[in-house]
Amino acid sequence: MADHYLDDSVIHDVWDNGLAPRIEIDSGDTVVFECRDASNFQVLPTSTQHDFANRKRGGGHPLTGPVLVKGATAEDTLAVEILELKHKGWGWNGHVPGFGLLGEDKAFDFPFMQLWDLKDDFCYFKDSNKVRVPFEPFCGVMGVAPAAAGEHNTGPPGFHAGNVDIRGLVAGATAYFPIFVPGALFSTADCHAAQGDGEVSGMGIESPMTVTLRFKLLKNHKIKELQFTTPSPLTKADTAGYFATTAHGPDLFENSQNAVRYMIDWIVANHGLTPSEAYCLCSAAADLKISEIVDAPNWVVSCYLPLSVF
Amino acid sequence: MADHYLDDSVIHDVWDNGLAPRIEIDSGDTVVFECRDASNFQVLPTSTQHDFANRKRGGGHPLTGPVLVKGATAEDTLAVEILELKHKGWGWNGHVPGFGLLGEDKAFDFPFMQLWDLKDDFCYFKDSNKVRVPFEPFCGVMGVAPAAAGEHNTGPPGFHAGNVDIRGLVAGATAYFPIFVPGALFSTADCHAAQGDGEVSGMGIESPMTVTLRFKLLKNHKIKELQFTTPSPLTKADTAGYFATTAHGPDLFENSQNAVRYMIDWIVANHGLTPSEAYCLCSAAADLKISEIVDAPNWVVSCYLPLSVF
Repeated sequence: MADHYLDDSVIHDVWDNGLAPRIEIDSGDTVVFECRDASNFQVLPTSTQHDFANRKRGGGHPLTGPVLVKGATAEDTLAVEILELKHKGWGWNGHVPGFGLLGEDKAFDFPFMQLWDLKDDFCYFKDSNKVRVPFEPFCGVMGVAPAAAGEHNTGPPGFHAGNVDIRGLVAGATAYFPIFVPGALFSTADCHAAQGDGEVSGMGIESPMTVTLRFKLLKNHKIKELQFTTPSPLTKADTAGYFATTAHGPDLFENSQNAVRYMIDWIVANHGLTPSEAYCLCSAAADLKISEIVDAPNWVVSCYLPLSVF
Repeated sequence: MADHYLDDSVIHDVWDNGLAPRIEIDSGDTVVFECRDASNFQVLPTSTQHDFANRKRGGGHPLTGPVLVKGATAEDTLAVEILELKHKGWGWNGHVPGFGLLGEDKAFDFPFMQLWDLKDDFCYFKDSNKVRVPFEPFCGVMGVAPAAAGEHNTGPPGFHAGNVDIRGLVAGATAYFPIFVPGALFSTADCHAAQGDGEVSGMGIESPMTVTLRFKLLKNHKIKELQFTTPSPLTKADTAGYFATTAHGPDLFENSQNAVRYMIDWIVANHGLTPSEAYCLCSAAADLKISEIVDAPNWVVSCYLPLSVF
């Protein structure tokens, strides 16, 4: 049950089952991962909108790993206990044209960055008291090496998990990964200080963090995709009820877009945020739920915003 | 601020903006609705699987209403406060071929009915302690008359709301409806004693209930689709954490199917339910969340089951 430490001096920005492991550990061991933010430190607390607009894009997530778990085979499952995530006082999100749920909307056809202060277990718009989102951090990317050889973009999640952006994977949760290559080769990063279900603008509150995980091998136990358990309650934001918008139709993606558009309109009209700020708040705090997926031909998606954020 | 009462001796099973109102009320008034169950009393606590398989299907929901709100116009919004839902001790759900999220799966190619006992604020499989789902009732159908003339099937939800099956619409919530015809013409029924986000088998815990709603007109306030506020917490089931399955891919509908299939497999393997019982439990208690909808081309849907049900 050894403790290990991986700094963030070395990263990898593709999934590749041929990558050499940075460390080899035993089942039961704990690893502390220093994780860069998703922009690979191109965004800093001092960044301007101009800096944000001109940063280099298209690279993969800067991942810390891989960790080889001795004895892991494709017949097993890798259990990862999320023990702790510590922030470094700041984070950012934003929107950019052509990316995110409303990336084609005229209202969001320019790059916009929202810096956040992280303090006292909450996330605040930088130097502002407009909104207050509970600090409920998780790793947007956690995954094992994929089955197929070669380099794979870190953007899309897959059977190996990866960029799943699941807000339930907070400290106290345990994630279960299928394994595709000997040793599993686990990596993580893309820490989010907070994020709503959906990550609608395409960005959680992106933050460098120190992440502590404990690894256990479940021998001869196979699963098809990522599973997890969570602690209770699911969120600390649930103290003042929710305002929710809904949208119906045969396409869950379009319904999601409409529910978020309605929510942004409501925030702008009722809480004095700009559309860009409202979109960033939704990405950080509003949850997309599939209310019904059976009343053909129209499914209903609801967007729930916790009212405690105001 | 008068109180009104509508028994369930008269129902309507289509949406039609030409229907005569059963009562006319003022903004601020309260109405008690007696609501039949979704099967229109074809399912009873004494029903057998044979009765269930041979009931007549294809009729609309038996709705109680319409209620005309004096002064309501298409420029206004109808606010409906959900004050109370009282059950009558029993409910049912189930699965039938060709209907529901897994209606084409071979595992569910036969009709199956699950009767439930409702008591002490919980829902139990009839005469069993296998599972215990909190009684968190809401009206599966709440809506106003649609804009278009003629008869409309009650199955699909629309801009007038209707069969939205939103589990957040519990007592303490307020729902906001757009209005399409003078007087709004509100009706409700399809009460569910409990239901997960998604209503995956196509049926909540279908139950006759007595529903008390208060109506308020918001003059000169227009919305495009149903909105609502909810009380906190969202559910009483959130006491023992959750087990969640995930599925990734470019189609949110298929991801939802896979996440539910994985969950059913897990319940059967770990909690001794049959696949049919597990599917019925998912429909009553498991929530479909869109974890991310931005990491193209693969979105992630998670199915969260509260562990307090076991």
